Amino acid sequence: MENKHQLSQGCAARNLTMLMDFYELTMANGYLENHRGDTVTCFDLFFRKVPDQGGYAIMAGLEQVITYLQQLRFSDEDLAYLRSKHLFSEAFLTYLANFRFTCDVWAIPEGTPIFPNEPLLTVRGPAIQAQLIETMLLLSINHQSLIATKASRIVRSAQGRPVMEFGSRRAHGYDGAIYAARASYIAGCSGTACALAERDFRVPAMGTMAHSWIQLFDSELEAFRAYAAVYPDQCTLLVDTYNVIKSGVPNAITVFKELAAQGHRPCGIRIDSGDIAYLSKKARTLLDEAGFEDCKIIASNSLDEYLIRDLLVQGAKIDSFGVGERLVTSRSEPVFGGVYKLVAAASNENETDLIPKIKLSENVAKITNPGFKTVWRLFDRETGMAIADVITLVDEIIDDTKPYVIFDPEFTYKRKTLTDFIAKKLQVPIFEKGVYVYDAPTLSEIRQHCAEQLDTIWDEVKRFENPHAYYMDLSEPLWKLKRELLDRYFAV
Amino acid sequence: MENKHQLSQGCAARNLTMLMDFYELTMANGYLENHRGDTVTCFDLFFRKVPDQGGYAIMAGLEQVITYLQQLRFSDEDLAYLRSKHLFSEAFLTYLANFRFTCDVWAIPEGTPIFPNEPLLTVRGPAIQAQLIETMLLLSINHQSLIATKASRIVRSAQGRPVMEFGSRRAHGYDGAIYAARASYIAGCSGTACALAERDFRVPAMGTMAHSWIQLFDSELEAFRAYAAVYPDQCTLLVDTYNVIKSGVPNAITVFKELAAQGHRPCGIRIDSGDIAYLSKKARTLLDEAGFEDCKIIASNSLDEYLIRDLLVQGAKIDSFGVGERLVTSRSEPVFGGVYKLVAAASNENETDLIPKIKLSENVAKITNPGFKTVWRLFDRETGMAIADVITLVDEIIDDTKPYVIFDPEFTYKRKTLTDFIAKKLQVPIFEKGVYVYDAPTLSEIRQHCAEQLDTIWDEVKRFENPHAYYMDLSEPLWKLKRELLDRYFAV
Repeated sequence: MENKHQLSQGCAARNLTMLMDFYELTMANGYLENHRGDTVTCFDLFFRKVPDQGGYAIMAGLEQVITYLQQLRFSDEDLAYLRSKHLFSEAFLTYLANFRFTCDVWAIPEGTPIFPNEPLLTVRGPAIQAQLIETMLLLSINHQSLIATKASRIVRSAQGRPVMEFGSRRAHGYDGAIYAARASYIAGCSGTACALAERDFRVPAMGTMAHSWIQLFDSELEAFRAYAAVYPDQCTLLVDTYNVIKSGVPNAITVFKELAAQGHRPCGIRIDSGDIAYLSKKARTLLDEAGFEDCKIIASNSLDEYLIRDLLVQGAKIDSFGVGERLVTSRSEPVFGGVYKLVAAASNENETDLIPKIKLSENVAKITNPGFKTVWRLFDRETGMAIADVITLVDEIIDDTKPYVIFDPEFTYKRKTLTDFIAKKLQVPIFEKGVYVYDAPTLSEIRQHCAEQLDTIWDEVKRFENPHAYYMDLSEPLWKLKRELLDRYFAV
Repeated sequence: MENKHQLSQGCAARNLTMLMDFYELTMANGYLENHRGDTVTCFDLFFRKVPDQGGYAIMAGLEQVITYLQQLRFSDEDLAYLRSKHLFSEAFLTYLANFRFTCDVWAIPEGTPIFPNEPLLTVRGPAIQAQLIETMLLLSINHQSLIATKASRIVRSAQGRPVMEFGSRRAHGYDGAIYAARASYIAGCSGTACALAERDFRVPAMGTMAHSWIQLFDSELEAFRAYAAVYPDQCTLLVDTYNVIKSGVPNAITVFKELAAQGHRPCGIRIDSGDIAYLSKKARTLLDEAGFEDCKIIASNSLDEYLIRDLLVQGAKIDSFGVGERLVTSRSEPVFGGVYKLVAAASNENETDLIPKIKLSENVAKITNPGFKTVWRLFDRETGMAIADVITLVDEIIDDTKPYVIFDPEFTYKRKTLTDFIAKKLQVPIFEKGVYVYDAPTLSEIRQHCAEQLDTIWDEVKRFENPHAYYMDLSEPLWKLKRELLDRYFAV
């Protein structure tokens, strides 16, 4: 497995077992003390709202969850630290010292378009274990799904032009840079500026020069010539250190002509400030007039999907985009609100039957879907387009050889009978009783899967503003179960 | 050095040398090929705008810069990766294989209030080295200063009540969580939920229970009793799983009474949803009536400085706050825009005299301050309050035994003669010719320094909205130099 191997260079060397909210530990210790530690539980990881008022998100971060779960162990140092808190029983510390992960895990593969409220990842296993892993599962999936979702919007805004991820310097911590490069690539970015992301994840990395290169030489022309001498076939010049139109582009053309005389073709210019729509059009004219129609114009400087869309609407002559801080932090909405909720549990440690659990809230949107579940995607058999996702209890089968009725879980009179459709389960098994059973795809396979699956989502759902709400339905049995539990609680 | 030692458990085990923008490498290789690799250069790291329209920021992330610089080395794997790009000369790869950091570094200590445009960190040394470290310097300082600045605002909004950082699950990657806990603590948070941040950085960690604890038991009362049995002296109960006033608080009081009968005093309740102003007042009344005036009320749920201020204005009865996603991502403004600019360079590899460099821009705010500089803070001798920061050329001395004139660099007729003041250089030496010469403070010393230094900043500057702009002036010699360079460029 290409990427898993590579991973050992990145985060895998670190013991991140203790990267957990402290309450996971107080609860786990408490479960054990109350003879509930081995109670079989079931947790769902899901999110409630697409960032940026978008219509879809992109699943990412699963590979890092897998690595984490495979390496989960409490070192002597961890145990010494926990003992020093004087909160935990020796029985619990012994449990941790002998910790072995034995849960079942199912998840939606990375790169898949995902929608609110569906279980992205489901864990079944002993209460202690399923609880302790909460923070890292959320942290991994929330971060990378956030960036992949944002990258998908930005890539779509560029209408086929390459988009490079350039944001390491403004990322939130080192992994914030590295995994943002990975997630951006999954969602369609062409590459990254981050060299480490290429070394460890094979995300194509590239870069040319900063303003400091220009400043270090006595003149812009001298700086351009010096660069061209070293990289005659990859000569992309930064033209905005002094004045793009009066100085940068003319000097670049001088150097491109010198290169051309030596048999090299120029690569491009980069504009990193000013009115990019105006400057790119002017620069394009100057380059074309000089015979450099094949010279690419690259734009950067605080871009996002809205600015890129507007630049293209205004006819900016840009061949590719470098996107930094607004991608790497998902600046307009830097939180992906995934949560991890108990949805079922056995009544005690000797039972295996799971009793559905529901989390109430005065905010209706925050009431959880109870029970041990899975999720299906229904595709139109003729067009291949996704029609709806249906959350079902885990043992239900959606038989796509027969008509199937979907209905709005809130406005139940809104019904639709599907006939010519294909039903696919979205979740796949990742761990069975703690044993890794998944055949994880490489990063380029994930990227390919993302592009293919996005093609099955209607453009109306992928619109930036006021997208059509994709159907996210509950099966009849699940809807009835939820209704029953609500009636029971609210009757009190 | 307490924290540096601890660091070896965290990020230090990783080789982050390749966490750099690819253009650092193309430039460095180009400097070498153009016989400029050893040219002495000087770079300043500074920011242009305080996030959230605030009046001040907090310096953080220096310790991670130090660790990075101490460990900077290119492994065989790194070199193999770079060679595979077919862009770099063998001479350059040999240079990297033998890389030894020999720059001078000065920086403002962590925890210090900082202001736009002043050099937070200055590097002097060979062009290749000073260039290659750009990305990691920016990444470290940008991230932690962002979070420390946000945390400082949130802590101030709580008016002395403890604030805990709770955001790991929504952080951007693993370091995004760990270093956010560190930066929040520097800026005055009382602790974190992140266990790893305590193990590695001694940031106090705490936590109690999630809703899953309540749901796992057959009733809320049973769940509370089970928790109380394990933690009778640290019994903080989450009261909003079903209904705070009708169920949560009455059940908590029942259990607190049972604990009290056994000689334990209750610790607190936590409210994580609903109208916290209303619920906290109702809960306070119920608790007081039951004789639990000493029971603390903790509030969480998407809080930030604005919500906390409003809650307290409305008389909410809250004793402490847990702040998650809006702190750990600095949600309202997730970008700290630190930049790293060449400000001076020798004319060639044999010179040591530095020639000032300026970066022009059509945007006046983006024109850099040229030259090898330092920065001073002037305090009123009587009150100890900070009056102004003055950026000077590095060899200037501000003699505080004599009157000193400060003036607005834009509106130069705005002048003020200071007499009774104390002048302190803000930057301190960190590395001299690559040798670490700093005596880094522990994290608790940094936190103490932050609190003391914030006390020297007028409340008007620390206001959330429309703060008074702190004086950030240039010395007369620096102002003249900048003016000269601008005249020269714009005369062309």
